[in-house]
Amino acid sequence: MAVPPSTYPRRLLPLFLGLFQAALLLFFALFVTYDEPSTQAEDTSLVADQVYSTFPFFQDIQVMLVVGLGLLLTFLPRYGFSSLTHNFLLLNFSMQWALVLQGLLHHFHHGQIHLDLHKLLISEFAAVTVLISVGAILGRASPCQLLVMATCEIPIYLASEWVIVTCLGVLDVGGTITIHVFSCYFGLGVSKALFRATQQPPDPKETPTPSSDLMALVGTLVLWVFWPSFVAVLCHPGDAQHRAILNTLLAMSASAITTVVASSLLQRDGKLSPGHLQNGSLAGGVAIGVLADMAVPPAAALVLGSLSAVLCVLGFRFLTPLLGRKLTLHDQCGIHNLHGLPGILGAAASVVAVLVASKDTSGSQPSQLSPVGGNASEVLEGQWRGGGAGGQALCQAAGLAVAVGASLLAGLLTGAALRLPCLARPPERLCFDDSLYFKIQHQAESPGPDSSAEEGALALKE
Amino acid sequence: MAVPPSTYPRRLLPLFLGLFQAALLLFFALFVTYDEPSTQAEDTSLVADQVYSTFPFFQDIQVMLVVGLGLLLTFLPRYGFSSLTHNFLLLNFSMQWALVLQGLLHHFHHGQIHLDLHKLLISEFAAVTVLISVGAILGRASPCQLLVMATCEIPIYLASEWVIVTCLGVLDVGGTITIHVFSCYFGLGVSKALFRATQQPPDPKETPTPSSDLMALVGTLVLWVFWPSFVAVLCHPGDAQHRAILNTLLAMSASAITTVVASSLLQRDGKLSPGHLQNGSLAGGVAIGVLADMAVPPAAALVLGSLSAVLCVLGFRFLTPLLGRKLTLHDQCGIHNLHGLPGILGAAASVVAVLVASKDTSGSQPSQLSPVGGNASEVLEGQWRGGGAGGQALCQAAGLAVAVGASLLAGLLTGAALRLPCLARPPERLCFDDSLYFKIQHQAESPGPDSSAEEGALALKE
Amino acid sequence: MAVPPSTYPRRLLPLFLGLFQAALLLFFALFVTYDEPSTQAEDTSLVADQVYSTFPFFQDIQVMLVVGLGLLLTFLPRYGFSSLTHNFLLLNFSMQWALVLQGLLHHFHHGQIHLDLHKLLISEFAAVTVLISVGAILGRASPCQLLVMATCEIPIYLASEWVIVTCLGVLDVGGTITIHVFSCYFGLGVSKALFRATQQPPDPKETPTPSSDLMALVGTLVLWVFWPSFVAVLCHPGDAQHRAILNTLLAMSASAITTVVASSLLQRDGKLSPGHLQNGSLAGGVAIGVLADMAVPPAAALVLGSLSAVLCVLGFRFLTPLLGRKLTLHDQCGIHNLHGLPGILGAAASVVAVLVASKDTSGSQPSQLSPVGGNASEVLEGQWRGGGAGGQALCQAAGLAVAVGASLLAGLLTGAALRLPCLARPPERLCFDDSLYFKIQHQAESPGPDSSAEEGALALKE
Repeated sequence: MAVPPSTYPRRLLPLFLGLFQAALLLFFALFVTYDEPSTQAEDTSLVADQVYSTFPFFQDIQVMLVVGLGLLLTFLPRYGFSSLTHNFLLLNFSMQWALVLQGLLHHFHHGQIHLDLHKLLISEFAAVTVLISVGAILGRASPCQLLVMATCEIPIYLASEWVIVTCLGVLDVGGTITIHVFSCYFGLGVSKALFRATQQPPDPKETPTPSSDLMALVGTLVLWVFWPSFVAVLCHPGDAQHRAILNTLLAMSASAITTVVASSLLQRDGKLSPGHLQNGSLAGGVAIGVLADMAVPPAAALVLGSLSAVLCVLGFRFLTPLLGRKLTLHDQCGIHNLHGLPGILGAAASVVAVLVASKDTSGSQPSQLSPVGGNASEVLEGQWRGGGAGGQALCQAAGLAVAVGASLLAGLLTGAALRLPCLARPPERLCFDDSLYFKIQHQAESPGPDSSAEEGALALKE
Repeated sequence: MAVPPSTYPRRLLPLFLGLFQAALLLFFALFVTYDEPSTQAEDTSLVADQVYSTFPFFQDIQVMLVVGLGLLLTFLPRYGFSSLTHNFLLLNFSMQWALVLQGLLHHFHHGQIHLDLHKLLISEFAAVTVLISVGAILGRASPCQLLVMATCEIPIYLASEWVIVTCLGVLDVGGTITIHVFSCYFGLGVSKALFRATQQPPDPKETPTPSSDLMALVGTLVLWVFWPSFVAVLCHPGDAQHRAILNTLLAMSASAITTVVASSLLQRDGKLSPGHLQNGSLAGGVAIGVLADMAVPPAAALVLGSLSAVLCVLGFRFLTPLLGRKLTLHDQCGIHNLHGLPGILGAAASVVAVLVASKDTSGSQPSQLSPVGGNASEVLEGQWRGGGAGGQALCQAAGLAVAVGASLLAGLLTGAALRLPCLARPPERLCFDDSLYFKIQHQAESPGPDSSAEEGALALKE
Repeated sequence: MAVPPSTYPRRLLPLFLGLFQAALLLFFALFVTYDEPSTQAEDTSLVADQVYSTFPFFQDIQVMLVVGLGLLLTFLPRYGFSSLTHNFLLLNFSMQWALVLQGLLHHFHHGQIHLDLHKLLISEFAAVTVLISVGAILGRASPCQLLVMATCEIPIYLASEWVIVTCLGVLDVGGTITIHVFSCYFGLGVSKALFRATQQPPDPKETPTPSSDLMALVGTLVLWVFWPSFVAVLCHPGDAQHRAILNTLLAMSASAITTVVASSLLQRDGKLSPGHLQNGSLAGGVAIGVLADMAVPPAAALVLGSLSAVLCVLGFRFLTPLLGRKLTLHDQCGIHNLHGLPGILGAAASVVAVLVASKDTSGSQPSQLSPVGGNASEVLEGQWRGGGAGGQALCQAAGLAVAVGASLLAGLLTGAALRLPCLARPPERLCFDDSLYFKIQHQAESPGPDSSAEEGALALKE
């Protein structure tokens, strides 16, 4: 190796993180408190009910983000430890950072921010955008670059979410537009600006091994199982939440089956691609989020799940190579196929759903079939914001446009900032390698006493 | 290799699955709806309570089936990706198929089926039977064969469950008889008819490696942790459910300890067998299901857990080799030891429990000690169906007989159908190998750039 | 190998476990029952509510102990199966043993012990102490030694917990003092008395491999996600529980970030140590337990999380090697760094919190800001036991002293007992090796047909 890993600069990371944690501490000490404990038995029981109804969902989402998504990213065989750790670190960093910004924006009353489980949950949702965007540049960016990206992405997400949900009144209970589409194009923008027109040479360390593919599939399955909690946690309790759970289950079940069909048909020899399975099975969950709590029929959820899986597999097969060739756009994990295409499909479906629902209900009781704004709780039940279903459909489309446009632009700017030399982008030969950041030695570099390869060789010698 | 994997036919799978998904979609579009949203605040709160009381159990069961059972099947070192994927695919396929059939059988009113979380849960239970039966032929059957098996097994299960629970009034809240015993003998029947009298030659790829044994043990532990949710989800809320959870915990705890005792005593050198631990620890959960919510004393749960673990270990040590030699019966995962023997033990125990409970309560308040029909909610609290405890005990025994008889017969017929050449049973040399179905290369076939073996060899060369 | 593994004695384990299980069965048959089923609809609904409010927490804790802690211990690359199995076995053994002892001590009324989910949960907490203590001697002790250790530790824990919580009135809802500090010093005492002054020679099998480090990190993440459930399960429902969840989340989030900072700054080359990450990320959860439900500001939770992570990393870097050199104290998993130091920090913080809280509330409504005794439900809301905040602060300190003193002394005595030759401590060369207890062959010993190393070597030969 020409440039030994020992000369790679690693001092900025602890400095950056340390300063951030100290500043956050100061902020919390000055401004953040808990609610006053309730003195009435009734209030206590109310708080208890809120905990019981939210906390299991919250834990499910934590498992998804920390374990499921982390494992999904371990498909890079020599980068598993980095993937898990960076994902974990970014989640914590982004969540704390979102807590501060959201507190300042929305919850700053009389110089105080009252912390509760719901605000933590909202901050976790903000952090998800960072975890998704990272997928575009995984393995080729330094932890410092990822942290700077998170620092930029969280406020832009909060602004974009405010425009989309509060100003435009977009219905998007599962974050299809606000989270998935936004973070996908933000990540692609970052990737484009960071790597510019240089073709990333394929690295043998990018090829999954059987065991890294297996771990990534376990991550997919964890995400698949808990996805309904992610979509339904912010729904209105009762029918809307029940429907959101069922729609998500149906969409993801259809995705799982359709992924196998599409992946098999697309290969000349009919063999399934592990990457298709790891991503396509989840595409339905991305697409359904935007209309999970609307009064769509169950068949619509199945259709959406199937279509999104097909789109995802087609994207991996044709679009990603095409974008790589034509636009020199690098998308390491294929986030455009898992979050971009199904997200756009879901947004389009929500436009249709809004229009169809309004036709169905013309003349009948509007309160029964109209969507219940979950994430957008400002929308009153039974009436669309801004005049009728047509207006609402326009809003959904406008929300999608805002999400794509704002995120691409902001991503390009952020990516340009990540080119700062001090952020220590790893040189090509040290990409995709745990040993750059961790005291971990893969066998090729130093066959230690537990290296099976060396043992085999030694056994042969004797 | 004489027959290259590239000539293996792989076109039927996507065709079969694609047609199924399209037909299901049509069925859903025509007949399946959600409940009308409730207009009263009271109803909304009722639905919310149902979601909060069922959904955590449902998620636990999803984790068991998708992650736990999937990982348990990865003990075949070169077949881990296939095990996980086929398990996942079959779960989705069978659940959707069961949803259709159950809707037609039980819930078809005025041309509509109203979907809710409870019906999805019941369909998941039906799908479990397929996932268990597959264990008998894992690694030697093609995905098409597995799907055809699922297609046959689900309607037979539904019929058998209807006879056992509805007609005979068998009490079986945890599915010991209806699910475990049924699916075990169905799987064995399929295996017998599929492989006939040909001795399956042992394949070196069947031997677990340390890391595949570790993954399978993690699967066992996931199943072990969440098993109480599986047994208790359909119980009456309150005491019956509380008791079902406790009984299951006690039985599984006794199983874990007794498995170690039995496995160690049975080996000449006292070493524990990984396979015994992976299965025996779960045997108590299988056995306790049938009487988990009955008013049995805690000691009974412990006895049942211990006995079932002993049976399971003895089965692995003596019965499976015997059946293999005498009947040329092939049971890849030992489902007879984990589901068959403990299931029969549990059914026998339920007969005893019914008789003993009736003696205890003769002359006293019957409503306190009699079992509360969980799965069999038709049985009224405090009175046996069909005349007294003796009648109920007979019913339990009859239910067991129906489960064993019907499943064996149906399994044999299904297995015969699986011999159709178009279903593409893999040739012997391609069994137990991911690379037949997936774009995955294990090291022996093609030492790629990340192959540690090759690296060791190269290091030696230089 | 001079002493072949085949002569290692393995008969005591099944004898010991078998007798224990039989005795437990007898005890349960004689004395343990369930509550009478409730006859009133109200009571039934009450029981149902208790199940719904406790069971999800209980399942989270089960996942932590069985899967999370088990995986964390698999960092020893050739000892993963043993780590998982011994952890699982000890959990079941200790839980049953604690159930008996706690029943006799606290719940024996009219010759009967009424079992419920809460008592099982309390017994699980007792079992946790054993699982932690084992970390000090992991890999160098036989299963029999571990079981004897558990047999001794459980009654001592129960006595110590009774003194600390009931007599002294210490507030410790998350078990920081009663569980973490106690079990840490008990384990260290055992290690010291068991290994005496003999320096344990470093064994190459102690060095983690990339894949064992990855599995251990997954274990850490599982523990990290579910830790809030562990801390909050015994809190008063309502505000106290809500606060406990939030405090734990904040502390653990700060721990995760601070661990990266501290680990990176302490290494000359700035690379992160996997061991630091695996442990430091959890240190905040240990420290926050003692005051999670007190009315501390959110910033205090962040400070505590950060400080405990720093202490943990410093401990790994400097204290463990120092103790090893000066006191020949062997601490395999570094439990002193994860449980000891953060536990003491948490106890000290609780003293400060009690004193500060009393100052804040002098003259105001005391019922609002005073801590709500979670674990110590005997403490009435709004008033300290034994005269004011000063008295309570003294109690907290005294509780810490009791935990450290009693556990060290008892640990030393227990460790001496573990030197009994019949307990079959494994000889040095067989330590850290699954093949001593299980039918598992790692590649070095016998390159089987699936050994990739052998294949590589063979490929080279040809």
